[in-house]
Amino acid sequence: MKKNVLIIGAGGVAQVVVHKCAQHNDVLGNIHIASRTVEKCQQLVDSVREKGSLKVAGELQAHALDALDVEATKALIAKTRSQIVINVGSAFVNMSVLQACIETGAAYLDTAIHEDPSRICETPPWYANYEWKRRELCEANGITAILGIGFDPGVVNAYAALAVSDYFDSVSDIDIIDINAGSHGKYFATNFDPEINFREFTGTVWSWQNSQWVSNKMFEVKRTDDLPVVGAHTSYMTGHDEVHSLSQNLKVPNVRFWMGFGEHYINVFTVLNSLGLLSEQPVTTAEGLEVVPLKVVKAVLPDPSSLAPDYQGKTCIGDLIKGKKDGEDREIFIYNVADHAEAYQEVGSQGISYTAGVPPVAAALLIASGEWDVQKMANVEELPPKPFLKLMNEMGLPTRIRDEDGDRPLNF
Amino acid sequence: MKKNVLIIGAGGVAQVVVHKCAQHNDVLGNIHIASRTVEKCQQLVDSVREKGSLKVAGELQAHALDALDVEATKALIAKTRSQIVINVGSAFVNMSVLQACIETGAAYLDTAIHEDPSRICETPPWYANYEWKRRELCEANGITAILGIGFDPGVVNAYAALAVSDYFDSVSDIDIIDINAGSHGKYFATNFDPEINFREFTGTVWSWQNSQWVSNKMFEVKRTDDLPVVGAHTSYMTGHDEVHSLSQNLKVPNVRFWMGFGEHYINVFTVLNSLGLLSEQPVTTAEGLEVVPLKVVKAVLPDPSSLAPDYQGKTCIGDLIKGKKDGEDREIFIYNVADHAEAYQEVGSQGISYTAGVPPVAAALLIASGEWDVQKMANVEELPPKPFLKLMNEMGLPTRIRDEDGDRPLNF
Repeated sequence: MKKNVLIIGAGGVAQVVVHKCAQHNDVLGNIHIASRTVEKCQQLVDSVREKGSLKVAGELQAHALDALDVEATKALIAKTRSQIVINVGSAFVNMSVLQACIETGAAYLDTAIHEDPSRICETPPWYANYEWKRRELCEANGITAILGIGFDPGVVNAYAALAVSDYFDSVSDIDIIDINAGSHGKYFATNFDPEINFREFTGTVWSWQNSQWVSNKMFEVKRTDDLPVVGAHTSYMTGHDEVHSLSQNLKVPNVRFWMGFGEHYINVFTVLNSLGLLSEQPVTTAEGLEVVPLKVVKAVLPDPSSLAPDYQGKTCIGDLIKGKKDGEDREIFIYNVADHAEAYQEVGSQGISYTAGVPPVAAALLIASGEWDVQKMANVEELPPKPFLKLMNEMGLPTRIRDEDGDRPLNF
Repeated sequence: MKKNVLIIGAGGVAQVVVHKCAQHNDVLGNIHIASRTVEKCQQLVDSVREKGSLKVAGELQAHALDALDVEATKALIAKTRSQIVINVGSAFVNMSVLQACIETGAAYLDTAIHEDPSRICETPPWYANYEWKRRELCEANGITAILGIGFDPGVVNAYAALAVSDYFDSVSDIDIIDINAGSHGKYFATNFDPEINFREFTGTVWSWQNSQWVSNKMFEVKRTDDLPVVGAHTSYMTGHDEVHSLSQNLKVPNVRFWMGFGEHYINVFTVLNSLGLLSEQPVTTAEGLEVVPLKVVKAVLPDPSSLAPDYQGKTCIGDLIKGKKDGEDREIFIYNVADHAEAYQEVGSQGISYTAGVPPVAAALLIASGEWDVQKMANVEELPPKPFLKLMNEMGLPTRIRDEDGDRPLNF
C-alpha cells in the first residue's frame, strides 16, 4: 500500500495530474509538485485550491527541482515521503528520475519514452535504447516502474491487451489511430511543447509489419477512417513508443501508429521543415548571432497552455484490431472520445492534456491499492487491463467498442 | 562631360553594373567599386578581369566604405575623381550617398527608394518622404540626381513617358506588370536580400486610382494576363516606388503595380508571415536569447547570389497602358523579355539582377554624353526616353511593343 505522490513537471499534463490526484487524495495521500520553475508549480496548486479539487484536507505543496539532478530528486522524494512519483516533465529527464526512484524505492510512472536532447527520432528498439536497460535493476530492487502510462502510449496499450485476452484467438494487426478533431482557433499551434511535438515528425517513420521494422518518410503513408462521433478523418503513419513495446510484448506481426493531421497542419509543417526552420542545428545570422531555428519557431508559436480556454471539439483515440476468433476473421475498434471544453471545465486544460494526464493518476491509484504494484518495470500491456479501464470509465475517459454487434460502452 | 564611376554596393546588381561599366570604360573612364566588405568588391573586380569585360585598359579598383558615413564617401569620391556615383547598395544608404554627391558635385544614380531600417512599408508619398526633400538643393547646386533608374522603377518609367508622348492623346491607366517566369530549382528562395524582399509585401498595398491613394491588403487584388513569350501569369497588386512618381509627374489618374507570384511563393510567404517569422521585432526564446525572426529566416534561405548558375527561364516586365488616341480607345503593352541563363553567361548574374543593373549604366553613359546631365533631381519619366531606350536596345534589354498592329521590336 503505497501513498503520497510527487508530480514532476508543471505543464498542461501536470495540471491535469495534480487536479486528478487532488480528487483522489483520500487514497493517494499528500501531493507534491516540482519543476525547475516553482512559480509554475504554485500556479497549479492555486488552481486546485480555486476549483476546490481536494477531496479531503491534506498536504499540497509546490517545490523547485532540477529533475536532471538525481541527488536533489532523491532528497525531495525523501523529504516529502513520496512513495509514488508521476513524471510528466520533459522527456529528457526520464532516466534521472527513474534512477532516483530506484535508489529510494518509490514507484515510477511516466507517459513518454526517454529522449536525448541532441538526438532526434532515434531508431527502434526505442524502449531498449534507455528504459529497458534498467529492467533487471528494477526487478532486483522490487521497484514498480510503469512506462508510458498516458493515453497513447498507455490506454491504447491496455486496449490492445484486452483485445488479445478477451476478443481474439490470434491478433494479426493493431492499428492505433489518434484523431484530434478539435479546434483551437489559432492560425497554427502545437498541442504540446513544439520542440517535442515536431521531433516526432522530422525523422524516419518506423512501423512493425510482418514482424519486422519498416521505414517510411513522414506523410508518405495515410489512411482515412470513418470514426465514431468525429466522422471521417485522414491519418498518417507515424513512429510512436507503443509500436515498439506492443510488437515485443504481444507478439503481434503488424503494429502501426496513425496520427491525424489536417491539410493546414501538414502545409505549415512542410514549409517550416523544408526551409530548415525545424532544425536543432544552430545557424548564424548575417549579424553573427548563433541561433537554433526550432527555438525561434517555438518562441513565435502560441504557448500550448494558452489554447485551453477556447479549445472546442473532440478527440477520438483507439485501437483498430484485426485477427481470428473461432476460425473467423474479426475486426473491432476499442476507443475513447474526449471533449476539449469539458476537460477545460473540469481541470483547466484542453483535451490532449486531459487524455494524457488522467491515466497516470489511475495507475497511481492501482499502485496505491496494490493491484498494479508489480515491483518490476512494466509496459502497460503487461498489466491487467480491466481494473485500469474500469477506473478510466469512472475518471472521465470511458472506453467504448465498435464491432459486429454495434457501438457501445465497455463496462468492467 | 562627366566621367569616372564610383559603384556603391557589391551584391548581384552591383556585379551587373561593374561588368556593364567595364564594357563601356572607353566612355565612362575609371571604375571604382566600394562596399563595407572590400573582399566582395574584389571578387567583382576579379570577375570582370576573368571575363575580360574591360573594353580598354583602365583603372578598376575595390574599396572598403561605410556608405552611411558621408565624410568617408566624399573622401572616396574625391580620391577616385569620380564624377558619377551609381548607388546599388542597400536602400538604407540612399540619403547619405546623395548628400556626399551634393557636397562634391558628383552625379547620383540609384535604383530603389530610400528606406529607414526601422520602418516597414511607409505610406505614400514615398519619394516625398526622403529624396524629393533634396530637390531644391540639387537644383541650386547643379547636381544631377536620377532616382530609381533600375528596371522597375526605371525602364518602366521611360516606357510610360514614351507612351504619353508618342502613343496617346490622353492616358487613363498605367499598369506595370512584373513577371519572373524563371526557376531557380530551390524549394524556396528570394531573388534579392530577403530582408528587403519581404518588406515589400508585409504592409499595406498602395495604388493610385481615380487620382487618389487606395489601400488594399497584400494578395487581395490580382489579375491574369496572357503575356508575350512567358504566357499566362497571375500577378498581384503591390505598392512600388514608381506608382508615386508616375502619378505625380505624368498626371495619369490610374497607376498600379502588379507583381507575379506563384502559388508556392504565396503559400510559403503566408505561412511565414502568419506565424510572425517575417517580423523585424525581436522575440525571446525560452533560453532567453533575443532574436529577430526575419534574420533567422534570412539565415536559412539560400543566398540570392547562389541562384544564378542554375537559373532558367525568362522575365517579362512592361507597361500596359490605356487611353485615347484620335478619339479612339487604345491599349498598348511596352515591355522587355530577359533570359536568366543569358544574363549569367554574360555577366555572372541572374536575370533579375541583370534587368536592375543594366539601366543605371545606360543612364551613366547618358550623363557622360551630357544628354541626361540635367543638373537637377529627376525621376526617369521626366527625362527624354528615346536615347535611353535606344541604349537599352544595344545593351541587352531591348524594348518591344504589342498593340493593334501586332507584336514587334521598338527601334529608336
